[in-house]
Amino acid sequence: MKFLHTADWHIGKKLHDFSLIAEQKDAFEQLEAIAVQENVDAIVIAGDLYDRTVPSEEAVKLLGQMTTNLNLKHHLPIYAINGNHDSAVRLNIGAKWFKYNNFIINTQLKDAFEPIENKDTQFFLLPYFELSLARDYFKDPSIHTMTDALKLIIKQMMVNFDANKQHVLVAHFFAAGSTHRDSETQVEVGGLDPVPLDLLAPFDYVALGHLHNKNAIHHEHIKYSGSLTKFSVSEAHDEKGFWIVDTDKPSDQMAQWYPVTPKNDIVILEDCFENLIDPQNYHQVSDDDFVAVELTDQEIIPNVMNRLREYYPKIISFKRKNGRQKTQQEHQVQIRKLAPLDLMKQFFHDATGNSLSDEQLEFAQKTLTEIEKNGELR
Amino acid sequence: MKFLHTADWHIGKKLHDFSLIAEQKDAFEQLEAIAVQENVDAIVIAGDLYDRTVPSEEAVKLLGQMTTNLNLKHHLPIYAINGNHDSAVRLNIGAKWFKYNNFIINTQLKDAFEPIENKDTQFFLLPYFELSLARDYFKDPSIHTMTDALKLIIKQMMVNFDANKQHVLVAHFFAAGSTHRDSETQVEVGGLDPVPLDLLAPFDYVALGHLHNKNAIHHEHIKYSGSLTKFSVSEAHDEKGFWIVDTDKPSDQMAQWYPVTPKNDIVILEDCFENLIDPQNYHQVSDDDFVAVELTDQEIIPNVMNRLREYYPKIISFKRKNGRQKTQQEHQVQIRKLAPLDLMKQFFHDATGNSLSDEQLEFAQKTLTEIEKNGELR
Repeated sequence: MKFLHTADWHIGKKLHDFSLIAEQKDAFEQLEAIAVQENVDAIVIAGDLYDRTVPSEEAVKLLGQMTTNLNLKHHLPIYAINGNHDSAVRLNIGAKWFKYNNFIINTQLKDAFEPIENKDTQFFLLPYFELSLARDYFKDPSIHTMTDALKLIIKQMMVNFDANKQHVLVAHFFAAGSTHRDSETQVEVGGLDPVPLDLLAPFDYVALGHLHNKNAIHHEHIKYSGSLTKFSVSEAHDEKGFWIVDTDKPSDQMAQWYPVTPKNDIVILEDCFENLIDPQNYHQVSDDDFVAVELTDQEIIPNVMNRLREYYPKIISFKRKNGRQKTQQEHQVQIRKLAPLDLMKQFFHDATGNSLSDEQLEFAQKTLTEIEKNGELR
Repeated sequence: MKFLHTADWHIGKKLHDFSLIAEQKDAFEQLEAIAVQENVDAIVIAGDLYDRTVPSEEAVKLLGQMTTNLNLKHHLPIYAINGNHDSAVRLNIGAKWFKYNNFIINTQLKDAFEPIENKDTQFFLLPYFELSLARDYFKDPSIHTMTDALKLIIKQMMVNFDANKQHVLVAHFFAAGSTHRDSETQVEVGGLDPVPLDLLAPFDYVALGHLHNKNAIHHEHIKYSGSLTKFSVSEAHDEKGFWIVDTDKPSDQMAQWYPVTPKNDIVILEDCFENLIDPQNYHQVSDDDFVAVELTDQEIIPNVMNRLREYYPKIISFKRKNGRQKTQQEHQVQIRKLAPLDLMKQFFHDATGNSLSDEQLEFAQKTLTEIEKNGELR
């Protein structure tokens, strides 16, 4: 059978205060079209459907639209879990009714062990969970890491393995050896200690969510799909998309990558102010693109952000590639803070263009020490 | 056919900071048992399922439980609308899937005109809506009141009337002539201008939500069910419950009242402190009951609230039936504020028990005026 593996939709996420709803909607439409065209048997969503535990009404509407289209319009089964960004309770609203249409959202650890079967494949939907929950479930207070918990979880899943079928794990965690992006905050990633890959060996394919880049890990059949849209400047050059997994093929050829074209992209502009406001250049960037400016000038440019926004309305970050000259005021403030010898060195350099010679330096030091001793320097 | 008419669940509402979840759960269980026992053909919920547009996770869970039991366990159709307390968007989550199990939540004006048919009856589910929405829907900027809107709405509903069937309107508004309770805040009630009852004549039964007391209006077949639990001290003596409506009977005998027994009641205690802390009395009140104290004493009782809470842990209101004596300090403060002549009158009365005679008063006034003139009174 063939399923589509996606994750980390983070519906409702903002990029420097700009809504990404239009981008997310567009990415969904691309995913939907390819799912239909490739005639997949199911859609797997490996957590973080929403960006917040209490999603906005706009986000609620968009997830409703997307799942309605996939499940009720195209009659595609959906197998989903909550990620660490979702509220298990809120994501679970309606889940008991969704089941009648093969739309399964699993938000509870206790329901992870009963496989969902589709053709030749058994899917195990493991939601994101807190370790305390695993301790309660297994009545085992010695569970202190995700590895401890997963050993028990996978062992219990294997009891229900049908040897004649393929086995797919859908989960939301940090796989050992993965690299991450800054849109996955350290706190979140840190909350999930890394899971060693050899633990996952019993599965023919592991559909992961949590990290936003498909290249976070390089493994034949343990994969992150990454997000469908870019969430930070550091992802400007990442390719976003999803996998379509064919379980009839051998593990190392199962997954095929389908990129999603960004509706409005993140563009990094490294240039001087004069070039940035040159029509030849700014006409090449869409007003709807998200722009990260890396200014090469060092000069002071009054009101620089507002002036740049006239040409690039959606600036999401701004930095000076080579630093910035100090204003006269900042310069004076800095001089006042210098120690007496450094101040003297600076003055000599400013006045003559040269540095103090060793002899001059010695003389200056001796003189300053004497003045200081006499209490004449405050 | 027979349907159960309930409304104003306000799941998640608090009573003076005390959760009502346990009371609401208990009321639901009573409703569920009677619905099954009376073999009703449908449950009608006339809005305000939640108390807030963003319900707590606890509230979400309880509504999930209740609707699962009614609809999936007992296979009872549910016909619901949003009230002014619900978020139409959030209440709509899953609604497209609920439909497959005859659980209809209508949150959109545009869907109010297509009747839901059940045996001999057509149900028209009119959600709570803002007037601007009605102006948009009818493309009629002259709609300024609920009456304006309802005239057009009911006219359009009647186009779909099947003359061989009964017609039930489910709605959430303020019917003219209704009286209301203080748990329905003035602002909410005021936001919904009263709807004259003659407008509702085309319907065989009107199942209303919005007011919390079944006696808010007295009409044979235009009825509020009221809430299932008590939401304020003013409702202490109200009977809560729901209607079961039999559409085979004539309009004036259609609705039969089913009371709900409060799990923990609101108890008003009007007594003196000494009696309130007498074991014979306080042992008659459950620790789980919500207590409104109306203290008859006038004396100062140090730390009165904390002491009462030792006997009645869930005090939701406290007042002095006969006012309270002033403390010595308050007394002095008041004296200091008196004008000189009033102070003299007060002193004379305190010292002699008599009021100043006209002659004495004249003398006092003259003397005070002279002192004042000389600047001796500050």
